[in-house]
Amino acid sequence: MGQKTPRGLAILGSTGSIGTSALDVVDRLGGRFRVVALAAGSNVALIAEQAEKYRPALVSVADKNGAETLRGLGEGWRMRVVHGPEGAAEVARAEGADIVVSAITGMSGFGPTLEAVKAGRRVALANKESMVVGGALLKREAAASGAKIIPVDSEHSGVFQCLGRARRGQVRRVILTASGGPFLKTPLEELGTKTLEETLRHPRWVMGRKVTVDSATLMNKGLELIEARWLFDLDASQLDVLIHPQSAVHALVEMTDGSVLAQLSATDMRVPIQLALTWPERLDSGLPELDLAEVGRLEFLRVDERRFPLFKLARQALAAGASLPVALNAANEVAVAAFLETKILFADIPAVVAGVMEAHRSRPADSVEAIIEVDKDARRQARRHLPQR
Amino acid sequence: MGQKTPRGLAILGSTGSIGTSALDVVDRLGGRFRVVALAAGSNVALIAEQAEKYRPALVSVADKNGAETLRGLGEGWRMRVVHGPEGAAEVARAEGADIVVSAITGMSGFGPTLEAVKAGRRVALANKESMVVGGALLKREAAASGAKIIPVDSEHSGVFQCLGRARRGQVRRVILTASGGPFLKTPLEELGTKTLEETLRHPRWVMGRKVTVDSATLMNKGLELIEARWLFDLDASQLDVLIHPQSAVHALVEMTDGSVLAQLSATDMRVPIQLALTWPERLDSGLPELDLAEVGRLEFLRVDERRFPLFKLARQALAAGASLPVALNAANEVAVAAFLETKILFADIPAVVAGVMEAHRSRPADSVEAIIEVDKDARRQARRHLPQR
Repeated sequence: MGQKTPRGLAILGSTGSIGTSALDVVDRLGGRFRVVALAAGSNVALIAEQAEKYRPALVSVADKNGAETLRGLGEGWRMRVVHGPEGAAEVARAEGADIVVSAITGMSGFGPTLEAVKAGRRVALANKESMVVGGALLKREAAASGAKIIPVDSEHSGVFQCLGRARRGQVRRVILTASGGPFLKTPLEELGTKTLEETLRHPRWVMGRKVTVDSATLMNKGLELIEARWLFDLDASQLDVLIHPQSAVHALVEMTDGSVLAQLSATDMRVPIQLALTWPERLDSGLPELDLAEVGRLEFLRVDERRFPLFKLARQALAAGASLPVALNAANEVAVAAFLETKILFADIPAVVAGVMEAHRSRPADSVEAIIEVDKDARRQARRHLPQR
Repeated sequence: MGQKTPRGLAILGSTGSIGTSALDVVDRLGGRFRVVALAAGSNVALIAEQAEKYRPALVSVADKNGAETLRGLGEGWRMRVVHGPEGAAEVARAEGADIVVSAITGMSGFGPTLEAVKAGRRVALANKESMVVGGALLKREAAASGAKIIPVDSEHSGVFQCLGRARRGQVRRVILTASGGPFLKTPLEELGTKTLEETLRHPRWVMGRKVTVDSATLMNKGLELIEARWLFDLDASQLDVLIHPQSAVHALVEMTDGSVLAQLSATDMRVPIQLALTWPERLDSGLPELDLAEVGRLEFLRVDERRFPLFKLARQALAAGASLPVALNAANEVAVAAFLETKILFADIPAVVAGVMEAHRSRPADSVEAIIEVDKDARRQARRHLPQR
């Protein structure tokens, strides 16, 4: 086969951890992908650099000022500059994009992800919140548009790879692994007062700040269970988590006959990102290899829910379904944001989320409007639950 | 779907460890398989029991006397009784057998396996020697007859499952695991004088005596590498082994993109046996599950070739190809048989095999006649190398 026409790529969240890794993969696979659109938030300097390098037809940033700064830039190649949520949505449905990398963090990623799905694109999904709040809706829209959602989270990429062509009835259980974060062995009574700095010191993965806090609380894994429920069409009872401090095994799929398939790799997000871009192809782009003899020992432990109360809350939301996962996610986003601004303590995060969940009255969450309504309500509630410190 | 017509099953080596496990799987899957033919060696009492229970149309045993004993038995259901190598070959091509379980140990399994392949059956292959001595031939015959060879060895079943639909160019490396056997931590200077009893005390798997000795020397893993070379069409350089004392992970497949798929299960041969019978289906027959949190810790180490000289010799035979793997296997069978009769010491086994390999002159081994000739020569040589103790 000769050189293929490069596939068009749009990246939502291009200046974040996943976005920059995705661009690194694009560089490594030289010529296979052409960046046609980029969306970022407030890191205007970096998206300007990216625009200079990849010359996309469309870029979006969070606000008007940022957009103004960029406007002079793309004259050489006629770049359109847009901004705000509607700008990100435009990037999501950008012309010429075969694949959309959805890597905006948090609930803000939901709208643009929905747009990409509606446009029938291949969606390389790193924004787990989209599935947490709108899994049913996204699956319905994907079925209608022909969009294919391929997970980018290392755990879900692992499940995706293990499943291969297995049929639903052949899968008994799916297990996601969790490193356990920085507080896996901290005495329980010291947990509550952990500082932001300690929380951001993740032992295995380099990630964005929000995700790193969610890893320390294990909320991240709870959200991932809810995401997996929709991505792979599983019941809550088929989903489980094992703590695995070495983060070499990302997921395990237990088949009905007792055989288990697992996926492993070096702890490098570029591996699952690349897979989502090239699947069903696998290409050698020189990414780090896993040397198991070097790692030497892999450990697996059950999750202690006393240590990780947010994980327990997430499992409850998973089991309950409907609007509860939306409320869970919203409350957690508010609480984590406050913790990142050092306005509340580590122990306040689960307290805020539990408060919102207790007061929550479940309702259907199967339309964008309903989801946004529940999200707003829960945020309002959560802010009320924030302790004044 | 209603009840399916049961698939016909012939078992070569029905009274051995794999054979009896296969019959247990047949019982567990009640009604899906019908046993049409059985072949055993000298355990006439057990095959008589099996014949009474499953009422096959054909049975074979090693010798005429055994056949006489059985003859009165099957009058109720018109059972034909045959014997010797030609008897086993008849069982291999028995009418009505959709699947042939090839589970005779050692070189004696080669002839019947070839018959089953020529007859175009699905061959559930536990006899690794067939592939070691005649891999090229078997692949050619399978291509001609349409036979499908599905591995039963836990390691190869693991590779088979991990590969799924991966194309050859997507696989960088295949790693088989080895428990390391009973002497993994024995001081090197004590290895030579290990007794038969100590050698047969395998820490993880319950297997036949020959295979258990081969596990202690790691020759078993060497033979498995050669088998994997043919089963999965790989180069010697793409094959590796890791010591993994817990035997939970059976195989790992490293893809070109750095992602690794692994297969795990409880250490129970019925898992891969069942898979070979039911593939591409997977059925819940109540086989033991693997509880990773219970296992707790998985270790991986490189093979120390000073500890396992037979493994090194097997790697040499793998790299050289042609007739050397045939000679390796023949010499090892002679040496292990002598060790099982306590005629030689543990340290004599590699010495005998090394002696035969050094004297061996490589030639093509691509026909049955050539293979049998090399095998005979090497056995003769090996007997000459047996020390008189």
